[in-house]
Amino acid sequence: MQTLRRPQAVVIESNCRNNILKMARKAERLNASFRPHFKTHQSNIISEWFRDEGITGITVSSPEMGAYFASNGWNDITIAFPFYRNQIDDINALASDTRLRLFITHLDDIDFLSTSLTFEVDLMIEINAGYNRSGTPIRDTSHIDFIIEKINNSRNVQFKGFYIHDGDTYHVTGMKSVKEIIKRDLEAFKKLNELYPAAELSLGDTPSCSMLTDLSPATELSPGNLIFYDLMQIEIGSCTYNDLGLLIRVPVAQEKTDEDEGIIHGGAVHFSKDRLSINGHDTYGQPVNVTQNGTISKIEGTRVSALSQEHGTVKGLRALKEAYETENLQEIWICPVHSCLAANLFKNYTTLSGDIIEKRVLS
Amino acid sequence: MQTLRRPQAVVIESNCRNNILKMARKAERLNASFRPHFKTHQSNIISEWFRDEGITGITVSSPEMGAYFASNGWNDITIAFPFYRNQIDDINALASDTRLRLFITHLDDIDFLSTSLTFEVDLMIEINAGYNRSGTPIRDTSHIDFIIEKINNSRNVQFKGFYIHDGDTYHVTGMKSVKEIIKRDLEAFKKLNELYPAAELSLGDTPSCSMLTDLSPATELSPGNLIFYDLMQIEIGSCTYNDLGLLIRVPVAQEKTDEDEGIIHGGAVHFSKDRLSINGHDTYGQPVNVTQNGTISKIEGTRVSALSQEHGTVKGLRALKEAYETENLQEIWICPVHSCLAANLFKNYTTLSGDIIEKRVLS
Repeated sequence: MQTLRRPQAVVIESNCRNNILKMARKAERLNASFRPHFKTHQSNIISEWFRDEGITGITVSSPEMGAYFASNGWNDITIAFPFYRNQIDDINALASDTRLRLFITHLDDIDFLSTSLTFEVDLMIEINAGYNRSGTPIRDTSHIDFIIEKINNSRNVQFKGFYIHDGDTYHVTGMKSVKEIIKRDLEAFKKLNELYPAAELSLGDTPSCSMLTDLSPATELSPGNLIFYDLMQIEIGSCTYNDLGLLIRVPVAQEKTDEDEGIIHGGAVHFSKDRLSINGHDTYGQPVNVTQNGTISKIEGTRVSALSQEHGTVKGLRALKEAYETENLQEIWICPVHSCLAANLFKNYTTLSGDIIEKRVLS
Repeated sequence: MQTLRRPQAVVIESNCRNNILKMARKAERLNASFRPHFKTHQSNIISEWFRDEGITGITVSSPEMGAYFASNGWNDITIAFPFYRNQIDDINALASDTRLRLFITHLDDIDFLSTSLTFEVDLMIEINAGYNRSGTPIRDTSHIDFIIEKINNSRNVQFKGFYIHDGDTYHVTGMKSVKEIIKRDLEAFKKLNELYPAAELSLGDTPSCSMLTDLSPATELSPGNLIFYDLMQIEIGSCTYNDLGLLIRVPVAQEKTDEDEGIIHGGAVHFSKDRLSINGHDTYGQPVNVTQNGTISKIEGTRVSALSQEHGTVKGLRALKEAYETENLQEIWICPVHSCLAANLFKNYTTLSGDIIEKRVLS
């Protein structure tokens, strides 16, 4: 392992590839297509690992992110964010060599798109089945009818289907609770499927895509986090430590023996401020042991207990020294709470063998 | 104002320059030098606004950040983070044309530096006077004596002084409370001043540097956040809305009239997840009105109430439409909770007149 001169985001390729393979096989079993969200890794190198499993359609958050992946030949792209009018120039540029799916909520945006688009795009209706973030409430069936009718009578736009991301599954623990939440979304899909049998029914959250064996009648899975997973997903039950595709490797800057703490060069600009309460303790990351072949184990009695901009505090200095079998603790490997946000904070990734993996950097 | 195609970090130059001027004058009044922390803005363009006020010494978080500013001629740089050994190559590279101040905690690091440095550097001892993050506890006077003696007997290193950053001032409200906290730090400085009268005594937190008129015996002020300020600093009492140097301008993606909410294209990847509890409500940002000359006012009855990766929820859709005098709400201007973390999430800044200000991008 190379000397660590500054914090690194380390990608474990074997685990990532295994996560992709498992989700691709599950989609196949469910007769659904797998259209992964690429916001998590934001890397054209990593996008190839999906291509290796036969993936052709992808999901992104913005026209800019779409343009980044289009530059690597991805030409079937869902922009999973409510369309807004000032995006039109970026969308027209991207649609010139890419088949796009946009999310539409407001009726009059269809007129706008129809007259402003220079290429045809597909439109999805995001459905709010209870999570209450964006989208059209499932109870507004007449609004949904109006939108579809209007799309069908407009040029340059095609109705494609429905999309649901239920973020409430990120706030519970265990398969039973996830199933209980996602029930409302699958019921919404069933209702829509009766009304519009040809429509795509796309489901986005990583917990239900990872844990549940029956997602019928969904026709598409579009999770993102599954490539890396993270501490939040471990706590939910979506994965185990050995599924982790991303670890943050940080230098130790100061040992505080009396307090049994270490100060790391790893702060909010490396991990983000997402945190979990685990056994009543604020946790911003979990120290782990990792072998060269990607086997990962939690180091008991340790946690990242506080973060400022560049500093982090790690509890359990003695346990760390024991786990890493050293009296001279120079670095710590940490499973981040939320890998999507941590990955977004690094310019590139490093592999376990020290190679650099290029990625997209910020917006 | 130009059309907003995606979230922007907007810098208000007049307010920034005014913040710099005020802090430079205060330092002058206190007979202290002003050595601003540049981690907040991370921009060589903005660094010139400090140079215009006569600033010559600066503070950064890492050798890499130092190298960025050294490329623009800054050659007197404090790296305000505990030194760790794997930084040595980056430090030697930077020290070839820059006078550096490093933070030293461990005695044996002095031997290491003395033999590994290819250029002379200054060493500061970071003091922990009660904040309990990094640094040497003020009660460990014998350890402090040992360090200084060892520095004095070692080549390539010079003892320069003491540094305190007391982050506890970020968690209180009002001048009286800030004063109460910073008392312990100034008492530590007094004690150190008696023992080492020639030593620099550097104080780093923005609340006390902004609010207090007596910081004696500090000889140096090194706040960073003061260039932009933010909602946290407004809540503490360090500044007012009209001092804000950075606003986040975000597109509105969906109007939810029934809930009196708007969904914005502005999430954790634009604001960070830092939050405040204001009147019992989780707040991730405060919508404001801004004029072309940088006059800023809070829009009452509104707040950013939730963030996911790319989405934000803003409460008070009607109040926003009223404040912006439009029925067609396309964008919202938001005062971020923590400007340092929000600024770090953007590739560049935009000015009020639409020009781009280049900055350093991630680590």
